[in-house]
Amino acid sequence: MEERLQKVLDYIEAHREEYISLLVRFCQQPSLANTGEGIREMADMVMEELKKLGAGPQMFETGGSPFVYGEIKGEADRTFGFYDHYDVQPVDPIDEWLSDPFAAEIRDGVIYARGVADNKDGLVTRLCAVDAWQKVHGELPLNVKFCFEGEEEIGSPHLAGFAKEHPDLIACDGYVWEGGNREPGGPAEITMGVKGLLYVELFSKVSEKDAHSMYAAIEPSAAWRLVQALNTLKDRDGRILIDGFYDGIKPVSEQEREMLKTDVFNEGEVKKILGIDRFIDDKHGEELLTALYYQPTCNICGITAGYQGDGSKTVLPGRASCKIDFRLVPGQDPDRILELLRTHLDAHGFGDIEIMCHSGCKAFRSDLNSPFCKAVIRTMEKLFDEQPCVQCTSGGTSPMYAFCAETNIPASMFGASSESANIHAPNEHLAVDAFIDMIRITATMMHEFAVQE
Amino acid sequence: MEERLQKVLDYIEAHREEYISLLVRFCQQPSLANTGEGIREMADMVMEELKKLGAGPQMFETGGSPFVYGEIKGEADRTFGFYDHYDVQPVDPIDEWLSDPFAAEIRDGVIYARGVADNKDGLVTRLCAVDAWQKVHGELPLNVKFCFEGEEEIGSPHLAGFAKEHPDLIACDGYVWEGGNREPGGPAEITMGVKGLLYVELFSKVSEKDAHSMYAAIEPSAAWRLVQALNTLKDRDGRILIDGFYDGIKPVSEQEREMLKTDVFNEGEVKKILGIDRFIDDKHGEELLTALYYQPTCNICGITAGYQGDGSKTVLPGRASCKIDFRLVPGQDPDRILELLRTHLDAHGFGDIEIMCHSGCKAFRSDLNSPFCKAVIRTMEKLFDEQPCVQCTSGGTSPMYAFCAETNIPASMFGASSESANIHAPNEHLAVDAFIDMIRITATMMHEFAVQE
Repeated sequence: MEERLQKVLDYIEAHREEYISLLVRFCQQPSLANTGEGIREMADMVMEELKKLGAGPQMFETGGSPFVYGEIKGEADRTFGFYDHYDVQPVDPIDEWLSDPFAAEIRDGVIYARGVADNKDGLVTRLCAVDAWQKVHGELPLNVKFCFEGEEEIGSPHLAGFAKEHPDLIACDGYVWEGGNREPGGPAEITMGVKGLLYVELFSKVSEKDAHSMYAAIEPSAAWRLVQALNTLKDRDGRILIDGFYDGIKPVSEQEREMLKTDVFNEGEVKKILGIDRFIDDKHGEELLTALYYQPTCNICGITAGYQGDGSKTVLPGRASCKIDFRLVPGQDPDRILELLRTHLDAHGFGDIEIMCHSGCKAFRSDLNSPFCKAVIRTMEKLFDEQPCVQCTSGGTSPMYAFCAETNIPASMFGASSESANIHAPNEHLAVDAFIDMIRITATMMHEFAVQE
Repeated sequence: MEERLQKVLDYIEAHREEYISLLVRFCQQPSLANTGEGIREMADMVMEELKKLGAGPQMFETGGSPFVYGEIKGEADRTFGFYDHYDVQPVDPIDEWLSDPFAAEIRDGVIYARGVADNKDGLVTRLCAVDAWQKVHGELPLNVKFCFEGEEEIGSPHLAGFAKEHPDLIACDGYVWEGGNREPGGPAEITMGVKGLLYVELFSKVSEKDAHSMYAAIEPSAAWRLVQALNTLKDRDGRILIDGFYDGIKPVSEQEREMLKTDVFNEGEVKKILGIDRFIDDKHGEELLTALYYQPTCNICGITAGYQGDGSKTVLPGRASCKIDFRLVPGQDPDRILELLRTHLDAHGFGDIEIMCHSGCKAFRSDLNSPFCKAVIRTMEKLFDEQPCVQCTSGGTSPMYAFCAETNIPASMFGASSESANIHAPNEHLAVDAFIDMIRITATMMHEFAVQE
């Protein structure tokens, strides 16, 4: 069995140049979701490659960039889902690029191009791994589904809708998800979940217009109302005071707690990056990571009222508002939290505070005991001969929720990129070796999942 | 004695055209404190008129617009101070004016010009009243001092300093202060004081930069700190919780309370203007006016943190700040309140919240039993044959504090302008008759104060 895999890995090594040139070709095609530039051409290129692999690709119109789907049957009755996106970030500021962002120039073993590390590398990686298996063995060790969207960089506005409309297409045993880093010298990093999100805006309104502040003696204050309402949401120890907020939260398992020990979170480095002296309550170690990954938050993203320019202006603002994001954990339902928030404000005498809901999505964490998760972890251990860093969830939210939160399909994010890869910035780049490594990882993972008990 | 006054009033009537043309001439000279345009020329014109009256005018450099001062000895050993300003507001938006703002066009008995109602009318009124007394009797019934500044429209930045440096010049028995309205069909309105002010800005800072909001789980929040600190300042009933804040407040006298009955405050109209449904706690009548005139406030003028644009952005703001104005009443010292605020924040665990003080000034209310105040009220009763509306203080703050808060010199603001006079707006205007009335009032007041017991 191992021999079967070794032949595939050897084939990949022997065909490095061919795979690199495919990645370069993909990077040379602009595909900007925010303007639509090159999106159609790029989607056609993806369709073309899937055709070559015999994946019977289909293009689904979404109202935005099309969704490209394909599938290939394999030996084992297990199915991998490959989620990637073919769109890229804008190139601004263009004059900070040392080479044309769509030239995909290779300098000293590094490819420089918009999208090369986010996420054309990932997408091409899947195509190459499948190609290598087919070329060597004529057949794949398991079924694969290709789920490629073209709007990830603008927030995947149609992804959840697509998942809802096509549960049959997105069904699989585990998703190999785009993104993820592997820092030079560090272990492989794997992320197996995301936090959920409820994003709301609170509005306090007394008048359409601001007044001279002498009237503060007799006109109710929208700003004070908002401050007072906000203050009921959270105590000074950070506990969220909305009745029922913590109800139903899925406990953190012993295994999930154990995984914190694999984390490569560098406290000093993160403090430096954030520009802070200390974490909340001077937390560190397991307690710190528990908060980051396993606890929900209620965060003020922005607050605004009245005069905010230089100097002073004596004004009584007629309106005030505050944007809040709640990061949620498994067991919390954003719709339910929204109801609880309304009930809370009403119960505290703030029926006048209006709530606008911007967005909501559930959290989810993959089942670490699923064959998929086991195969992912074992692949990394085997290839790199060391324990990978396993984050059972990101501290943030990603489109992963759209496919996984409702279906509970396990998913895993790991990649060849790095914090220093300049994704979303000028001179985005990826080492050729890291790209080839990712093909090897994908090919190995297909094997490991196929044979996993 | 009354005959002496009547002759002056007759003279004024007989010389209407002469006085109107002086006002028109003054209005035709631009004098914009914000740009300095015409300020010198205007100050020279004022000097020239004071010279004609024999007031021995002096021009004091302030670093901004010059201060013009003059004085004339009269019969009685009592001294009136005339405070007015010769600068005007900018003219923008210029294309909404129906005639050139410095043409001072008269249409249907109304003069249209920038500054005609704020405050060249007031300034010229004093000159004309003095002129009439001199022309009729050769001498004034009492001493007068002219205190004319040229920066009122930009906040009188040098007025308090001038008062401090020249206590001898500003000393007098009562100030006839610029401003004030008399609504058509309504009684004369007199304002005898101002609230004080402490304007501060509170800063909460955790980091120089904003962070991805996933870090809200571990990075302290500047915005939440600010909200929590603010919340300690005031309870939901509006009571200010700063220890010592209410200490030393001068009680409202029975007489001051009585004066509320003269007020023409139209609750329905004010609610309409403010665009509100109700006043704080549904107050009305005496309780409402007591709050407006006699109680201090703690008002949020503006608050700002993080993302405030459209839609959502998941960000943890590194900084947050809030502008607050406290309107103060007699007996409260802004310097002391600032100290109390610092002590309060420290005591509540908010030593990290920084305070920047923008400005501070004391409140004051004129002594209603002073000969000056009595003379002012009697003048209005006599001329208009009805009880004037006497506000013992404005709900706001005006440069009046600079001359009066420390010296306790009584002052009185009353005028010929109206809420509908478009001061600070296009098509500022004043009826010619209202202007002549104001000269009559000033001349009468000189007489009344001279003979007052």
